[in-house]
Amino acid sequence: MATLKDVAAECNLTVTTVSRVLNNRGYISDKTRKKVYEAMEKLNYQPNEVARSLSKKSTNTIGVIVPHIRHPYFSEMISNIENAASKKGYKVILCNSKGADHKEKEYLDMCTSNRVAGIILFSAGVAVQEFTASNIPLVTVERFTENGTAAIECDNRQGGELAAQHLIDVGCKHLLHVSGVSENSMPADDRAKGFASVCEANSVDYVEVSTSLGQYNSLDYHDMLESALNLDKEYDGVFASSDLIAAQVLQVCAKLGRRVPEDVKIVGFDDVMISQLTTPPITTIHQPIKEMAQAAVDMVISATSGNTVAKRTLLPVTLVERESTQR
Amino acid sequence: MATLKDVAAECNLTVTTVSRVLNNRGYISDKTRKKVYEAMEKLNYQPNEVARSLSKKSTNTIGVIVPHIRHPYFSEMISNIENAASKKGYKVILCNSKGADHKEKEYLDMCTSNRVAGIILFSAGVAVQEFTASNIPLVTVERFTENGTAAIECDNRQGGELAAQHLIDVGCKHLLHVSGVSENSMPADDRAKGFASVCEANSVDYVEVSTSLGQYNSLDYHDMLESALNLDKEYDGVFASSDLIAAQVLQVCAKLGRRVPEDVKIVGFDDVMISQLTTPPITTIHQPIKEMAQAAVDMVISATSGNTVAKRTLLPVTLVERESTQR
Repeated sequence: MATLKDVAAECNLTVTTVSRVLNNRGYISDKTRKKVYEAMEKLNYQPNEVARSLSKKSTNTIGVIVPHIRHPYFSEMISNIENAASKKGYKVILCNSKGADHKEKEYLDMCTSNRVAGIILFSAGVAVQEFTASNIPLVTVERFTENGTAAIECDNRQGGELAAQHLIDVGCKHLLHVSGVSENSMPADDRAKGFASVCEANSVDYVEVSTSLGQYNSLDYHDMLESALNLDKEYDGVFASSDLIAAQVLQVCAKLGRRVPEDVKIVGFDDVMISQLTTPPITTIHQPIKEMAQAAVDMVISATSGNTVAKRTLLPVTLVERESTQR
Repeated sequence: MATLKDVAAECNLTVTTVSRVLNNRGYISDKTRKKVYEAMEKLNYQPNEVARSLSKKSTNTIGVIVPHIRHPYFSEMISNIENAASKKGYKVILCNSKGADHKEKEYLDMCTSNRVAGIILFSAGVAVQEFTASNIPLVTVERFTENGTAAIECDNRQGGELAAQHLIDVGCKHLLHVSGVSENSMPADDRAKGFASVCEANSVDYVEVSTSLGQYNSLDYHDMLESALNLDKEYDGVFASSDLIAAQVLQVCAKLGRRVPEDVKIVGFDDVMISQLTTPPITTIHQPIKEMAQAAVDMVISATSGNTVAKRTLLPVTLVERESTQR
């Protein structure tokens, strides 16, 4: 690979002059500048970002730690984060913790060793007990972390309320809520609270069944859904805490001979691609994934520059009506 | 952040001694070693990988360039690549080219400037004309590139053959193939060739309709599928060149009142999560995504060490039967 020295030799200039052109320092004639750029192009010179990072003591890299890359919610988040970061000249190092405590810790250490500008840490199965790399901004999304710089969440409670109200509005009388992972405490737990409060205010029957970490990790909810729907055949509305679960409710209903939306109406959560690809498409609570990703990137970059950023940011959700709840 | 100097001061040793412990060089007593590790832990010392990379002239990082992070095929690939890379102590920098020529070039330059160990480049809308960073290994997956180090593909032709044979075996007489992007030339185009050859050998009617770059970028095929299925109401079998398209064939069939699998049978391609989440689940051609990701990572690492790697690697595909083609 061509070095600064090669470029200097190619255009018969000193390394200092070439370096001044590259870093835009001091007066350089247009003629010299042109000569340097031509030599750089000819030799396919690529500036060494590693050396530059060493002198800056930080890189223009953001570490993104998720529990599940292939989960549609996280892949859409990652896509939006990469997009927002790239526009600001930042790169993304992607880390898949699989919700495992030790993997999360390893990745946090790796990010620190690699002098990332900041870290975006997503909801996962476990809590980070010992992240103390004090001067690296840590932005958490949809998780509780005591020692983070900033936390970003969507209004989970509002989402639960909207789901319950919509199911009641379309005529459901007997509701089931398939909620989050029972082993964890997460902001998403507020979906169940919002759901319950609206059901109670409207005197509508409801049952909540929680899911397990095993199901979350395998992404497979079929067995538990079949048990729940067989145990009580009167359910006419289901609110699932993710579109991934809602798609499986659709499948289990088909297996049990219950038509959607005629016999059972379904509302999901997230508004990821899968909710638009099922037959019928799923009514869902739209999480502002794009805005949450943008906020996370902005906050990392802002905190890196020493700015004070909001400790907690709560973004609103909306109901997106599709065929799974048609009257 | 604690430095090597801080660690040395903490345990009353020289920086040289601490550095020797860290790098496992020369004789160090167990007592000294223990003292250093205790100080490192106490100060939460993280070695500076940036400095280490500068002296090595390369980083333990792999650049992964995909056209679409949120497309289920790429998110499963990314997940498997991250997993394989992480096991070998490599990090992944993720780049979303959106299939745009200039973005792909920018990312290739960025990877070079950041001294990645190697690059894994996925099928995209455009060809890389000028990637000439000669000493960085470039492994391509499912795309043609003249100047790559190694190319990894699945047996696309075999996939097309398996799909046609299966549809014929379950009794279909009049087939539709929704093929790849007409503007691009990609290894995946062989799916159509394999499909056609089996239809012809069996004297079964078939029509091929190709898709557009606009549809690929928006991930929305509904309009073109509805036109195709309305134009000829006799189709009783559809082979879609991705599971994403197959899920939309299911939706369009429901809209047109054609039952799957009774009236129309559907085969997808990829075997990504979406094929298991539709109602009914989709019969598909399984791409060995895990093995392809593993091979790509192994080849980058092997080429980085100066080893000769296979110029082209072709992995077999298999048919996975689900309800969408049940007799």
